[in-house]
This record gives sequence, structure tokens and C-alpha cells, in this order.
Amino acid sequence: MKLATYTANGQTRTGIVVGDAIIDSGVEGTMIDLIRDWDKLKPTLEAKAAAGGGVPLASVKLEAPVQRPGKIFAIGLNYADHIEESKMETPQRQVWFTKAQTSVNAPYDDIEIATGTMTNDYEVELVAVIGKGGKHLGVEDAPSAIFGYCVGNDVTERMWQHAGPQWSLGKSFDTHAPMGPWIVTADEVGDPHDLGLRCFVNGEKRQDSNSKHLVFNIWQQVEHLSVGMTLEPGDCLFTGTPGGVGAAMDPRQFLKAGDVVRCEIDRLGHIEAKMVAES
Amino acid sequence: MKLATYTANGQTRTGIVVGDAIIDSGVEGTMIDLIRDWDKLKPTLEAKAAAGGGVPLASVKLEAPVQRPGKIFAIGLNYADHIEESKMETPQRQVWFTKAQTSVNAPYDDIEIATGTMTNDYEVELVAVIGKGGKHLGVEDAPSAIFGYCVGNDVTERMWQHAGPQWSLGKSFDTHAPMGPWIVTADEVGDPHDLGLRCFVNGEKRQDSNSKHLVFNIWQQVEHLSVGMTLEPGDCLFTGTPGGVGAAMDPRQFLKAGDVVRCEIDRLGHIEAKMVAES
Repeated sequence: MKLATYTANGQTRTGIVVGDAIIDSGVEGTMIDLIRDWDKLKPTLEAKAAAGGGVPLASVKLEAPVQRPGKIFAIGLNYADHIEESKMETPQRQVWFTKAQTSVNAPYDDIEIATGTMTNDYEVELVAVIGKGGKHLGVEDAPSAIFGYCVGNDVTERMWQHAGPQWSLGKSFDTHAPMGPWIVTADEVGDPHDLGLRCFVNGEKRQDSNSKHLVFNIWQQVEHLSVGMTLEPGDCLFTGTPGGVGAAMDPRQFLKAGDVVRCEIDRLGHIEAKMVAES
Repeated sequence: MKLATYTANGQTRTGIVVGDAIIDSGVEGTMIDLIRDWDKLKPTLEAKAAAGGGVPLASVKLEAPVQRPGKIFAIGLNYADHIEESKMETPQRQVWFTKAQTSVNAPYDDIEIATGTMTNDYEVELVAVIGKGGKHLGVEDAPSAIFGYCVGNDVTERMWQHAGPQWSLGKSFDTHAPMGPWIVTADEVGDPHDLGLRCFVNGEKRQDSNSKHLVFNIWQQVEHLSVGMTLEPGDCLFTGTPGGVGAAMDPRQFLKAGDVVRCEIDRLGHIEAKMVAES
């Protein structure tokens, strides 16, 4: 099933995407509420999806599927080619930073270049959305802890990322966590470790890889994060970006106002945004 | 005014602390809702506080004042004596990491030593709770962007903090962000840069400093964070810890089950917790 958060007639709701239509889920509350009650809601939503109807997808505004995740953790240096272009060593342990919930952005909304910054970069990433979650999850528990997947762009202000030893602030600028266009539930995705992912800037392909090349796979990521921390419904994990970021090009190519960034992942869809100067 | 979140008769509410009593604020919603509507609510709450009444503070359970902050940012290496004991250089720029909202803990609740961890440490910190917040705030805007202050303990799993280059995960274990006992509003605190802060383990004083020794003061912190990121009502800033942490003692002294950690700050009160093995 494909589940979206959308705004229509001034109301923000959750819905089921079927072909070119979106069907109101009828669930009160946010996507996090829907995920929390998923076991109970699933049969009803499957029936709604089968019955069809709804309104044209093009007639609504898609929002980030989870607009206010309780937490967003993102793993660094998790594709061999990106580690090489970053001139780093393959980490022995997983390297995690965070993105603030205020950085979440709708899948087709503009991405802001904050006043005074000049080193904004893209990073296409497969995003795992936590379902049941939990603590002390083993790799064998991880698949059932995840609700589904969507496309993410781990937009990064490189000067701020590297101005000190900690990355989280330079990863947390407003609008710098676009996600969407919807969540594809884990059962419909199948194996999340065999998904092609690509990023284009103004139509030029910059990143092109496959999640089978993850250094630490998603099950290992869930195991590592949940050693000390409870993963909760709607938490989002950015699972790493492959090679091809602008900061590693020669010469470096940072995003400028007017650029269009498209991130796409097999079986999940795409998100696309115009870069704009902060007003 | 002193504002608390508390549970009584199975209900969690916000209240005003007056002496040894707590008075129901009458506000529906969480502390974040109260902060958001503060300008409108203040006269009513002042009248309630003046009228007195309420129930004995000892009869209710105090919760963290903000139970689910939208974001928690914490600054590292921000007291000269702590930088020295950490054998680090004074940073040229502010160094920020994050604590997950799931790490928030009530002011007198037990702190967990996660299974398999052995290097848990305390860090008393003055916590600034954002009020109006905003973006692109200057140092002159910062005082009016802050709602109030409380005591925090930036509990840290040192092995996890330093196992890799990024600290946020080792700072985000469940129960590792105790805060409280309540928020003292900024007007009542007066100058936040002249508050003594102390930490005791089993009655032994381990940290003893004053917020006048902050390397980057709170106004500079607000300015730095809000360059790219909108600060929102209820966001929490851990403003740094002074020297005296267990990891810097010779020999190192980490917290063990049964230890009692008390953090206190002038004019704000204290929080106190027993360390327990995770069950």
C-alpha cells in the first residue's frame, strides 16, 4: 500500500494512493497515529483501496509522509563510492547524526538556500520509516520493526557540516529533509536492499547506485540504533547516500537558486524540488 | 513564575508551582501549547498563582517540564575547565550535537544503565527552553526568544559517544535527558549568566561552577543555532557542562547501579535520580 499525507481544501489528512488517485484514509490524526494503529487499521484501509474512488492525486498537495517525526537519524559514509569520494576510511562502526524535525519538507516544495550560505548539496537516500519499532532489536527483528520506505534528500550545508566536528546542525537547516512522495509499506517494497536510487540536478544524473551497496544494511542499522534508544512509530532513518555528491565533483558543484533536484528510487517514486534563495 | 508538568490521578497536566503547592494551570494541552499561547495566558496564570490553593507538590508526580521537545540541541566544550579536563582545544566555533526526544526523563525518575554499557556519566547543565523562538535571531533578540530555564543532566554513555566521530547517538539513550523540576520563566530568573550549578554523586560534590563561565553565552548560542534552523516553542538547549565529569577523574569514575545523582542550579531548584540497571 502507498500511504501519503496530503492537504486538500485547507485540511491535512492521510490517504491511500491508488494509481492516479488518492483516497482519504478516514483515520483521524497524523501518519504517526496511523502507523501506531496499523495492525487494527490495515484491513479497513485495504478494503478502501480495493473499492477505489478518491480524488485525482494531481488535485491535492502532497506533504512529507511524516511531517513531524519524533526523531530523524541519518547514517554517514555508508556506500563505498561515497566514502572514497569523501576521502574517508570505511568506518568500523556505524556513524550516525541527526536532522531536526523542523527540517522536514514536502516532496515537491522548494528547498531553501539559507541567507549567507553557499555550499548546499544533495544526497539521495532511501528512508526507512519505523513501524512497531522497539529497543534491543536484533537484525532478525528489524524487518518487522519497519513500517515502510520513502525517498529522501539529505540536503546538507557543507560549510556548516564541516565547520566543526559535529554534523547535526549543518544537516538540520529548514527545508533540508524533503521526503516522499508517500510511504510504500514494507510488504509492497519487498527486499529494500535491491533498490536503484538516482539523483538528477537540472536533468543531469549525478548519483546512480543501488541499496545493495550499503556498507551497513538496514537491519544492522536498526540493531545498532536500538541498543540504547527506543525506536518509535514514524521515526525516520536516512540510510546513507551513494557517490556523486556535488562537494566531491571537480570542480565542486553546489546547488544554486533555480536548480531543480530530483531524487528517485525504484518502486518508491520520486521527489523533486527547486532551489530558492531564502526570502 | 514556575511552571511544571505533573501527573495526578492518572492525568498529566501543566501547573503553576507556588511554594509547596501546585495549581492546575487550567490550560488544555502540553507545556508546548502553554508556551505557544503564553502572551495570552500569562495574565490568567498570574491571577491563579496569586489566588493560591492547589494541591501539595509532594502529592503529585513531577514530569519533565517539556516531555516531548521538538528538538534538543546541546553544546559541547563550553566551559574552560571542562575543555581542559577533556584534553581538547577551545573550539573556534560552537560545537552542537543533539539528544533524542525519547531520552527525556522526569526530574526524579531513575536513570537507566543500558544493558551492556559501563561508561555512563553525568553532566549538569543549565537548560534554556525556547519561547517565541524564530530564525536569524541576533544576540539582542535572544533574551526575548527564550521562555525560561530549568536544570538538566546531559547523561552520556562515553563509550558510545566516542566510538565514532559523531556524539548524538551516545547522548540519546533512553532516560538520559532528565530535566526539571520545573521551568522558571525568564523574567523570574533574571540574568541567566550568573547561576551557580553543581552536581553531586552520592552526596559528593563533583561539579561546581557558574554559568558566567560559559565560553559561548546563551545569546550567542541562540544566534548560532537560528542561522539556518527555526527555533520553536518548547525546544530545549543544553547550554554546556563545567569541569568535574566522571570520565575526567583519575581513576575514571562511571555511574553504577544504586548511585544517586543530584544536579542543582541557583534559583531553579534541583533534580535527583538513582541509577538503575535496565530491566
